[in-house]
Order: sequence, then structure tokens, then C-alpha cells
Amino acid sequence: MARDVVVIVGSVRRESLNLKLAQALLGLAPETLKLEIVPVGNLPLYNPDLDATPPPEWTAFKARVRRADAVLFVTPEHNRSVPAPLKNALDMASRPYGGNSWDGKPAAIVSASPGAIGGFGANHHLRQSLVFLNMPAMQQPEAYIGHADKLFGEDGRLNNEGTEKFLKSFLAAFEKWIGKNAP
Amino acid sequence: MARDVVVIVGSVRRESLNLKLAQALLGLAPETLKLEIVPVGNLPLYNPDLDATPPPEWTAFKARVRRADAVLFVTPEHNRSVPAPLKNALDMASRPYGGNSWDGKPAAIVSASPGAIGGFGANHHLRQSLVFLNMPAMQQPEAYIGHADKLFGEDGRLNNEGTEKFLKSFLAAFEKWIGKNAP
Amino acid sequence: MARDVVVIVGSVRRESLNLKLAQALLGLAPETLKLEIVPVGNLPLYNPDLDATPPPEWTAFKARVRRADAVLFVTPEHNRSVPAPLKNALDMASRPYGGNSWDGKPAAIVSASPGAIGGFGANHHLRQSLVFLNMPAMQQPEAYIGHADKLFGEDGRLNNEGTEKFLKSFLAAFEKWIGKNAP
Amino acid sequence: MARDVVVIVGSVRRESLNLKLAQALLGLAPETLKLEIVPVGNLPLYNPDLDATPPPEWTAFKARVRRADAVLFVTPEHNRSVPAPLKNALDMASRPYGGNSWDGKPAAIVSASPGAIGGFGANHHLRQSLVFLNMPAMQQPEAYIGHADKLFGEDGRLNNEGTEKFLKSFLAAFEKWIGKNAP
Repeated sequence: MARDVVVIVGSVRRESLNLKLAQALLGLAPETLKLEIVPVGNLPLYNPDLDATPPPEWTAFKARVRRADAVLFVTPEHNRSVPAPLKNALDMASRPYGGNSWDGKPAAIVSASPGAIGGFGANHHLRQSLVFLNMPAMQQPEAYIGHADKLFGEDGRLNNEGTEKFLKSFLAAFEKWIGKNAP
Repeated sequence: MARDVVVIVGSVRRESLNLKLAQALLGLAPETLKLEIVPVGNLPLYNPDLDATPPPEWTAFKARVRRADAVLFVTPEHNRSVPAPLKNALDMASRPYGGNSWDGKPAAIVSASPGAIGGFGANHHLRQSLVFLNMPAMQQPEAYIGHADKLFGEDGRLNNEGTEKFLKSFLAAFEKWIGKNAP
Repeated sequence: MARDVVVIVGSVRRESLNLKLAQALLGLAPETLKLEIVPVGNLPLYNPDLDATPPPEWTAFKARVRRADAVLFVTPEHNRSVPAPLKNALDMASRPYGGNSWDGKPAAIVSASPGAIGGFGANHHLRQSLVFLNMPAMQQPEAYIGHADKLFGEDGRLNNEGTEKFLKSFLAAFEKWIGKNAP
Repeated sequence: MARDVVVIVGSVRRESLNLKLAQALLGLAPETLKLEIVPVGNLPLYNPDLDATPPPEWTAFKARVRRADAVLFVTPEHNRSVPAPLKNALDMASRPYGGNSWDGKPAAIVSASPGAIGGFGANHHLRQSLVFLNMPAMQQPEAYIGHADKLFGEDGRLNNEGTEKFLKSFLAAFEKWIGKNAP
């Protein structure tokens, strides 16, 4: 039976490198991992004053996360940390009316950036949040994808063999991680 | 001549403890520090696709930050990190049409929470962003205000003498820090 | 069959609060978790120049860690991060002549301090190292033990019922974590 | 009058890339910055039980740090954090018999590694310690030197023009930072 994996992309740009990377991951995943990109750019900024009357985007997002077997984060770094739209999704879905929707779901992180460092700061700040959210986080392989702007063709598809091979092994390790830590 | 200090509150709740704390700081500041709370809850989620046609809330916020001599952050911790609305303000005002509006402004951080830990995770994640934003960050005194829900009276005002004294010394140190590091 | 759990104490003081806490954990552990404190204060400072002729303390420590089923860290915070003797043990046992001895071992962290914050900075800096060392780290419950100097009687034994109960539940969760993630 | 700057190298290997980088910095510094490398590999592991009878290496190191006008850290990353010998120097010189010797000294950080990431994890973990140690830390330019093994000739000297230019501008910014924040 295939695992249902929600993919959260940290950038909301239309031409986002991380979105392209997430799409590449969808294509590279084995049949036993069913990846689906769930957008976060449309989620209103979280405000606890609205807990009693949540916008429908919040409740729909929470319900989708709760159904998932696992979560894969694919994110750039903004100002040496997690981008605001990703932090907003984390915060909102962790809150009232139904509790923490992320609770217990195995997670893995790919960070990517055009620079050399590959989103290290976002990757590890995100990991600190996953501790509190109670999401078992895969440790190895770590995935810092630097110079990500060089990895895609004009058609927007991954055309780097080394990266492709690495991402396949990353997904294989993630599948094992889910097998061990699924709730 | 008084310093113009923008105060950014990391929580957008109406009854926010951090908002009350920020208001207390306004009352405790010497005449030479003119503190003003600039809200961030109304800022649309940052999206680089809108850089060419920015919402008016963005341009107004950027202009206000740019005028300031210094920035004081007063923030809770959400999921062991910086709350989304604060990260959104940081990211948005650091971007195009006019460049990084935070550049070079001396900063200080107060973190507060109802729990014992006083927002340590938010405090230090925020510091990592300030490195990239080029904001000289005051090191001492650190301000982790734990059990913050016990510090206010029914009228919402600070009624704890020890905290009041500490915040005064914090502001005095911040004034010196601004004096040394103002652009 | 009982799990063999190496306990690493981050402080090397004779009267260390964290050592007392580790000893309390030994007493509270179920029969199925065999905890043993393995000291790190006698390990010479790691220097790669000695990889070819390692001091016997290094090889003995590496061998002991390699035999273990899991690792429990009990540590104070020094200067908002991991104490040097603990970092030294991590670095040394991760290196040549036999490779990374920590590899794959499930881990949990208790941090404790006399102050209110309970070693948050050490706890999370240590977690960042565990990613690289490939040690699956238990996320919940987190254990930040503040005001740790108030928890022990004159005989050096834990005499706080709430903490005792919490540590028991922590160990029960750790046992489950080891069950899922043992190599 | 020239500033007296203590240079602390985080690696204790004889052939350390970071040592070579520190030596290059000595050669590139203007006359107004007098850089001196002060070794940390000979410092016995810090243990508070010895506060009353400190080894002479500790007292000599503390005295040297206390005389300095500023501190420049040049460090690799070990296990995604600060190397043990550097953490040991920080912890030891921050402690009793004379108090925190680092107090108030302006600091800057260069991190370097053979990999692409340039020691990001060490760089920012070190910054978190500098908050507690009350060392004003220069924010920009950040210095993450990746692929550092490619930067030196067979004679061990820096032979990369871009890096040389960058390090000169880094030192110029540090001199200004010291000017503003010297105690």
C-alpha cells in the first residue's frame, strides 16, 4: 500500500526553484510513495483571535495534513531561516480546533538555494520546530541543494544526473524512515 | 534629540502578552527614546511575484522602518521559533523596490512567554536573521521573560516591580547600543 | 532482552546536578532499559593529528559507544551551547579508525540547569550535531529541567515527585523510540 | 594606535586549513590591526572543580584574552557545530578567578571548510555563545569560506585573488566595528 506524503514547498513564487525541485521529486518517487504538493501561499496569516471562526483555507489545510502518512518539506532559506509562508503553515496547522495536525508524522527536509550553502539555516531552524511539533525527522542523508538555479533545463525539469541519483536515494531512505516511524 | 525606535510585536492577538509588554516598554522608556509600536498583522504574506506591484501595506511598512533609528523586537515563541507574522515582516521589508529596509539599524530583542523558558528559541532564531539583515544586535542584557501571564494586572498593565526595573535597565543599555551603532 | 543504553553526562564536575539527574534516571529506568553512565571527563581533547596513534581512552570510549543500543544525553548548558567535554566526546568518537561510532543509535536528550531555562540552548545545539552523526533523536517529550538545584535532597537524591513522574514517562517514551529505530 | 586582536583558530591540526587562513589574515591586515594567533590546543579540558587550583595554561590564556582589544575567530565546523577545542577555550576563559575574560570585546567570525557550506553551523552556534559572553559580533560581511582546500598553494599560502580581496574588506569592516564597540 502506498504512503500518502504531503509535500510542503517553502516558496510561493510561481517560478520557484523549490517548486521545480518538488515536482522533480514527484517524478522520482517510487510507486510506494504517493507525493502530493499541497500549497501554502493561499493560507491567511495565522491569528489566534480567529480560532473560533477559522477561514476555510485553514480548516481544509489542516484536514489534508491530518490525512497524510508523512510530510516532505522542500524549502529555500529566507534571511537565514524558514520562509514566512512555510512558518505560517506550521504555526496555523499546529493550533486549536482539532489540535496539532502534524503530530507524529514522519518528516524529511530538502533545502535548496541558488547560493552555495543550500539553505542550511532554513533546514535546521525547521528541524527545531519539528521537535515541538512531534514529527520524527530523518537525519541522514541531509539534503542541502546549492546552486539550484543550475539544475533545471529551459523546460523547468531537473537535468542534473548527480542530483537525480541523490534525490532517489533520499526518497528511498525516507520510505524506510516512514516505515519505522509511522504512527 | 530623541531616537526614533520602531517596536515590532511578534504576536498579532488582541490580548497578546507581548503587546502588553511592548506597551509597558513605551511607558518605561526615557524621553530620549521615542518608542512606537508598528503593527505587522495587516501585512499580506510576502510573495516575490508581487515585487513589481506591491500592496500599499508593504510600501508603507518599509517606509516606516526605513525612517527609524533603531528596532526593538518583542516576541513570543511559536513552535520553538519566530512567529509567522514577525518572520513575514522581516522577509517582506528585506526585499526589492528599495532594498533591505532594516539595513544597519541597531536592534534589541525581548522574548516572552507564559511558560518558564521565555521564548529562548524565538529569541535566537531571530538573532540569526539579524546577521543577514545587517542589524547590530545588542548582546547583554538578554531578555527572556518567562511566566509572562503573571506580570500584568486586570487593567492589562505591568504590575511586577522586578520586571519593571529590569526593563528599565534593558532600555538604558539599548540606548547606549544605539549611540554606538547608529548608521 | 534489555537494551544497553550509554548515558553521557555533559558536566564533569564531581557535584554536578546533571550527574545526580543521570543517577536518578538509572534508578527510575525499567528493567528493560539497562542504563550505564560512561564518563567523558578523562578523554584527551580530540586532535586529528593523533588519529594514527590514538590515546587508549579514545579507543576504549569508542568501543563502549559502538556496543550500545542507544544513547541518553544528560547535559547542562555552558554559554548557551553544549559544554566542551560533551562536544569533545561527540567529535572524537565520530572520527577515523573505525568511523563514526554513534552511527544509527537512537538518542534522547535531557538538559538541566539551576536557572529557569533548563538548558534549551545546549539541548538544541546538541540536536543539530545528532543530525550529522545520524542518530535518530526522540522529539517528544522534550526535557528542559529548570531550577535543577532545588530537586535534590542533602543525600544527593531526587526528591521531587513531579520530576520523578516526568522522567519515568520520558524513559517509557525513549524505550518505544529505541524499539522503532534500533539499527 | 594599533588594535590588539587575538585570533582564535578552531582547529588544532598542524595542517589545519583554518590555521592557514588565519595566517593569511595576519598578512592581509592593515598596520592598524595587530593580529596574533593564540593557540587553544594545549588548554586542558575545562573542569570547574579546578577553579581553585587552575592549570597555568588556563591563567595564561585568560590573561592574554583580557589584554586584547578584540577577538577574531577562524573556525571549521565539526558535526554541524563548534569544534571542541574552541568550545573549551570559550568555556574556560568565561569562568571564575577573574570572571568572564571575553566580556565586552568586539568579535568577528570566519568559518571555513573543504565542503561547499563553509562552516555555517559552527559560525552561528558560535554566535549564540557570543550573546551570553557579551561580545558584540559583527554581522556583515558574513564569512563562510567553502572549498577551502582549493585556496592554498603547495607552500601553504593563500593563492586565490577573490578570497584575498574579500578578506581585506572583511578586516576593514572589522576595524570599523572595533572602533564603534571597543569597551
